[in-house]
Amino acid sequence: MRIGQGFDAHRCVKTTGAEAGDGSGTARGLWLAGLPWEGEDFVIEGDSDGDVAVHALIDAFLAAAGLGDIGSLFGVGKTSRGAGMRGADMLRDTIAHLRSHGYAPQSASVVIVGNRPKVGTRREQAAEVLSEIAGCPVSVTATTTDHMGFTGRGEGIAAIANALVDAA
Amino acid sequence: MRIGQGFDAHRCVKTTGAEAGDGSGTARGLWLAGLPWEGEDFVIEGDSDGDVAVHALIDAFLAAAGLGDIGSLFGVGKTSRGAGMRGADMLRDTIAHLRSHGYAPQSASVVIVGNRPKVGTRREQAAEVLSEIAGCPVSVTATTTDHMGFTGRGEGIAAIANALVDAA
Amino acid sequence: MRIGQGFDAHRCVKTTGAEAGDGSGTARGLWLAGLPWEGEDFVIEGDSDGDVAVHALIDAFLAAAGLGDIGSLFGVGKTSRGAGMRGADMLRDTIAHLRSHGYAPQSASVVIVGNRPKVGTRREQAAEVLSEIAGCPVSVTATTTDHMGFTGRGEGIAAIANALVDAA
Repeated sequence: MRIGQGFDAHRCVKTTGAEAGDGSGTARGLWLAGLPWEGEDFVIEGDSDGDVAVHALIDAFLAAAGLGDIGSLFGVGKTSRGAGMRGADMLRDTIAHLRSHGYAPQSASVVIVGNRPKVGTRREQAAEVLSEIAGCPVSVTATTTDHMGFTGRGEGIAAIANALVDAA
Repeated sequence: MRIGQGFDAHRCVKTTGAEAGDGSGTARGLWLAGLPWEGEDFVIEGDSDGDVAVHALIDAFLAAAGLGDIGSLFGVGKTSRGAGMRGADMLRDTIAHLRSHGYAPQSASVVIVGNRPKVGTRREQAAEVLSEIAGCPVSVTATTTDHMGFTGRGEGIAAIANALVDAA
Repeated sequence: MRIGQGFDAHRCVKTTGAEAGDGSGTARGLWLAGLPWEGEDFVIEGDSDGDVAVHALIDAFLAAAGLGDIGSLFGVGKTSRGAGMRGADMLRDTIAHLRSHGYAPQSASVVIVGNRPKVGTRREQAAEVLSEIAGCPVSVTATTTDHMGFTGRGEGIAAIANALVDAA
């Protein structure tokens, strides 16, 4: 049994209807914990879909297996393999990568730190989606920092994750 | 064996003797890592006793067992079930909740990030109190952020925790 | 099997050639994740070599074994046992301390949060060095906070670690 730690943080960027389809990346909408979130006025920046919760989980799984990190697997920047990818697809690829190297995901957990969206209302749905992709129990929790720091001011969202993997 | 991650952060609020008993919540004193701390000039904000270390541990245990989070178990706000509760009692309830769902706590650990109180002096006492409540080894460590960020400026205290649980 | 959480953060301090050998501590150079980093214009503050990644790992291992924290093992301040020590030597001592108390390190992982140095280029080398010292797999990953917070502004570097230990 091996353990991994993951962390990610990205900026929140305000959106307006006018930006839809302008190629800036904001048109893709807000994705977090493998789910789309309607009715918010921001998206999360990032080469892929900016899903910090999934990115932190991916790093935790890769670290547990000693197979690098999200940057080494998907690249960095707008021309990388991960550019424009949905977090859910990145997680699916990560798990396949682990299995092809003889590791079986056992369990994982991620805490989302931020003001919006209100994850609590769809926490169980997110956990179900991510658990199915990972092929093991994945828990999702969320908290704020009481208006302190960059997450508290709404500048960004962070996520802390851990994971256990076993030799398959 | 399943793993869980927990995180919590709350504001520090300066207190004076005049506030005792004014119903503002500051009269309850400063509680952290399951212990009362005398001689400090602040308390930690929060619906319950503001004990970020215990709250992070609770979220880590609940996440490991896939049983939600502190908000789903104790509610949020001044009229919630958790309002005014001591962290130690919340942890006791959490462990009972886990056991009633067939999970046995195996081990947990929490890092407190903040300037005050000086946890190091009572680290072992805190670990003993929390381990007895949890029914498994719980470690407590503490560090600062060298005057950087909201914890470094003394605006708040944060805690990062992890936990292992097993099917009972 | 027991789990531990670790966290550390230290300030980055700009250096110039003139400071070499002035006894301020900056002459020791920049050390992170057990490696020296050439060509950077800053060092990390700290009583020892300021290696936040190794310090977080040490706390995670000690917490997992219930053997205190880096402060209780190495002391705090410029006259402590840890003053001026290389992180790698502190980690070696920590693992020996664990083994002498009947604990065997199983696995560990650390995320470095900061802008510089660019850890990704030497991630595998760092993991090899730390794994050999720890006597178990140790993963190293790195990320930034998109210019947010004290790590994003380059004021400091943080590290979050976790570890599993077993009764030997």
